[in-house]
Amino acid sequence: MITPDYIVGFVDGEGCFCVPISVHKTLAWRREVRPTFEIELREDDLPILRHIHRHLGCGKIYHLTYHRYAKWKPHVKFKVSKMSELQSILIPFFDRHPLQAKKRKSFKIFKRIVKMVAKKKHLTKSGLERITRLRNQMNP
Amino acid sequence: MITPDYIVGFVDGEGCFCVPISVHKTLAWRREVRPTFEIELREDDLPILRHIHRHLGCGKIYHLTYHRYAKWKPHVKFKVSKMSELQSILIPFFDRHPLQAKKRKSFKIFKRIVKMVAKKKHLTKSGLERITRLRNQMNP
Repeated sequence: MITPDYIVGFVDGEGCFCVPISVHKTLAWRREVRPTFEIELREDDLPILRHIHRHLGCGKIYHLTYHRYAKWKPHVKFKVSKMSELQSILIPFFDRHPLQAKKRKSFKIFKRIVKMVAKKKHLTKSGLERITRLRNQMNP
Repeated sequence: MITPDYIVGFVDGEGCFCVPISVHKTLAWRREVRPTFEIELREDDLPILRHIHRHLGCGKIYHLTYHRYAKWKPHVKFKVSKMSELQSILIPFFDRHPLQAKKRKSFKIFKRIVKMVAKKKHLTKSGLERITRLRNQMNP
């Protein structure tokens, strides 16, 4: 049975809070900032991702099948990047059930960035710089 | 706070049940079979290993500092390989708090091997062959 504590332990080991920053599709001067929580596992661990997905009640599961490497096995990825889900489901979950290992620090920074993006701070030069600095401290 | 469910989640992600088989130090015909449970993390996650160590009440923590690779960061390893601790503490813990992901299968096989080693089955040719076959099914 999957409990919140189980999820916290699993995420402390395998979860990732990340903030990709990319060039906007049509507006070259603008940057897309996309705070994302993800867990990537080999395909044979899909059942555990499904349990976590169901328990959290947000995000989506993706199947990754790269053919670039002969030895590479298919992976599955659980991903939450919708701002509304991050703000109303994922972040409150880890507030109620705190991470214990060094991922705790990444989560703290992640939360700050999500708040800034929600307030559109990434659309100003100084806001984007601040987000970039914070992001670089996340996963040392 | 570290709970049993947290440990199970963490181990499902980061733990390893392994069975190294090596040549005996003085008796070349004999094999050493050493069922071992371990969790290896980067050194900055030492606090979490200490929590798990304290909670389980068995095993030891080792500091790994290889100097072979310039980019390699120091690691820490929590390890349980004493047969008495495996049998009376570690295995009963994961019997009470079952693993959920594919590590569950590794644990099941690990348990069988520990039982066989306890009965000195690895000292016979057929026993050793059986253990080797089982071991090869553990971490595909």
